[in-house]
Amino acid sequence: TIFVITPTYVRLVQKAELTRLSQTFLHVPQLHWIVVEDSLHKTPLVTNFLMKSGLTYTHLHVPTAKERKLQEGDPSWLKPRGVEQRNEGLRWLREDRRTQPEEDSHQGVVYFADDDNTYSLQLFEEMRSTQRVSVWPVGLVGGMKFESPVVEGGKVVRFHTGWRPSRPFPMDMAGFAVSLKLVLANPDACFDGEAPMGFLESSLLKGLVTIDELEPKADNCTKVLVWHTRTEKPKMKREEALQVQGLGSDPAVEI
Amino acid sequence: TIFVITPTYVRLVQKAELTRLSQTFLHVPQLHWIVVEDSLHKTPLVTNFLMKSGLTYTHLHVPTAKERKLQEGDPSWLKPRGVEQRNEGLRWLREDRRTQPEEDSHQGVVYFADDDNTYSLQLFEEMRSTQRVSVWPVGLVGGMKFESPVVEGGKVVRFHTGWRPSRPFPMDMAGFAVSLKLVLANPDACFDGEAPMGFLESSLLKGLVTIDELEPKADNCTKVLVWHTRTEKPKMKREEALQVQGLGSDPAVEI
Ligand SMILES: O=c1ccn([C@@H]2O[C@H](COP(=O)(O)OP(=O)(O)O)[C@@H](O)[C@H]2O)c(=O)[nH]1
Ligand SMILES: O=c1ccn([C@@H]2O[C@H](COP(=O)(O)OP(=O)(O)O)[C@@H](O)[C@H]2O)c(=O)[nH]1
Ligand SMILES: [Mn+2]
Ligand SMILES: [Mn+2]
Repeated sequence: TIFVITPTYVRLVQKAELTRLSQTFLHVPQLHWIVVEDSLHKTPLVTNFLMKSGLTYTHLHVPTAKERKLQEGDPSWLKPRGVEQRNEGLRWLREDRRTQPEEDSHQGVVYFADDDNTYSLQLFEEMRSTQRVSVWPVGLVGGMKFESPVVEGGKVVRFHTGWRPSRPFPMDMAGFAVSLKLVLANPDACFDGEAPMGFLESSLLKGLVTIDELEPKADNCTKVLVWHTRTEKPKMKREEALQVQGLGSDPAVEI
Repeated sequence: TIFVITPTYVRLVQKAELTRLSQTFLHVPQLHWIVVEDSLHKTPLVTNFLMKSGLTYTHLHVPTAKERKLQEGDPSWLKPRGVEQRNEGLRWLREDRRTQPEEDSHQGVVYFADDDNTYSLQLFEEMRSTQRVSVWPVGLVGGMKFESPVVEGGKVVRFHTGWRPSRPFPMDMAGFAVSLKLVLANPDACFDGEAPMGFLESSLLKGLVTIDELEPKADNCTKVLVWHTRTEKPKMKREEALQVQGLGSDPAVEI
């Protein structure tokens, strides 16, 4: 089973993002989607969406502390996003597996899939064989066409990245998966929200694996099977103009 | 059969967009995807992509005249996009059906699906029953939470939009579908690239149907089943910095 942990939060494009993401996941056999809302409460939108999705899922929520949330106008890199939510996903998974001591329920792979990226179906097949931590290129991330581990002799020897290549693991969240066994064997391993920008992935991985142990996928990291796409914030000028006149879009219609 | 006509063009996010779009379409039975590249030649990326997609498709191409193409820095609304490509899709479809005089090969629906929008699966089921032109709300378009026909007594009586509601058909491309019969019965109906901004949809529809004849879908146009999402242009600063040093991303890797 591939356990996909996705943080998500309320904004205009949320339902659209979840919709196309779910259409991807519906094609992947043995996928368990762990959706963690950045919210004090589960929202009706996500609750109903998951119910109708046809997917196997777990619905969690944990709010990001106010001082750790991006404010309007903050550049997107200012504070890390989705940290508490991913950690909550890990916490639930570890707790859930404790009640299931059978060997085969500890087989599986954990993947952190943000809700605005684009995933090929091939990616999920590549990650299924993860023994510890598997890695692959990520397209359109870090100001690059792609970032990628560099593989020689079947091993990762360095990283192709445009920024601070000396980070322990200079990779994007979308560029690796961790075996469930490793997650369970290291119950304290999680993401450190206080880590400097760009070190979030390293904060988890350094407690789990060495570079030498990384398992390269996607044809020895030569194929891009996932893209760090981002969605434009929709303009609402006409909506605001109409609302002033009391003619705005019916708020009862879910977007 | 739902004939989906999608214009597409080369840019960094193209493969990602087509990937997630194809994952949507793979869920829709009896869908024939007509992909029209804005290009002098078919590109290897799209050619190979379609071959591997698992979808029923037709691959066409027609370049937008240079003076009609957006230039770097142009606001996106300056020139209409995808016009020649949609018209080429219509041309092919009409020609292809001429070789197939059987009644049932003239059943079907034509939908113009841009490659960056988000489509729910329910949308395609709603449009299947189109007799002439069916319509529904579109989320996150025109500076609005959603735009929509307004339905009273099962008929469209006006349009909820924030901009020039007096247009003949103030709707987005994603908000309607046309029966194949109607497309074939009006062989000259196509999109007018010279139409003023916002009148592109009207330029096709005014030759096909009256407002009174429109068939409202999506629960009398009260549900949003499609969103006019747009994808951010990825930053390439690090890539450019590395390229200056001869260390850019391997151009042989398809993004
Ligand atoms: O306040 C926020 C901002 C983002 N996210 C989620 O955290 C992940 C990463 O955020 P984003 O995609 O915006 O980061 P970036 O694209 O800049 O890496 C996504 O799944 C978001 O839905 C969140 O839960 N709360
Ligand atoms: O030079 C271009 C620009 C756009 N398109 C396509 O035309 C459609 C509409 O373009 P876009 O989505 O950028 O328009 P908007 O989102 O502003 O309505 C999309 O399928 C694009 O892939 C194209 O073929 N050539
Ligand atoms: Mn993201
Ligand atoms: Mn678009």
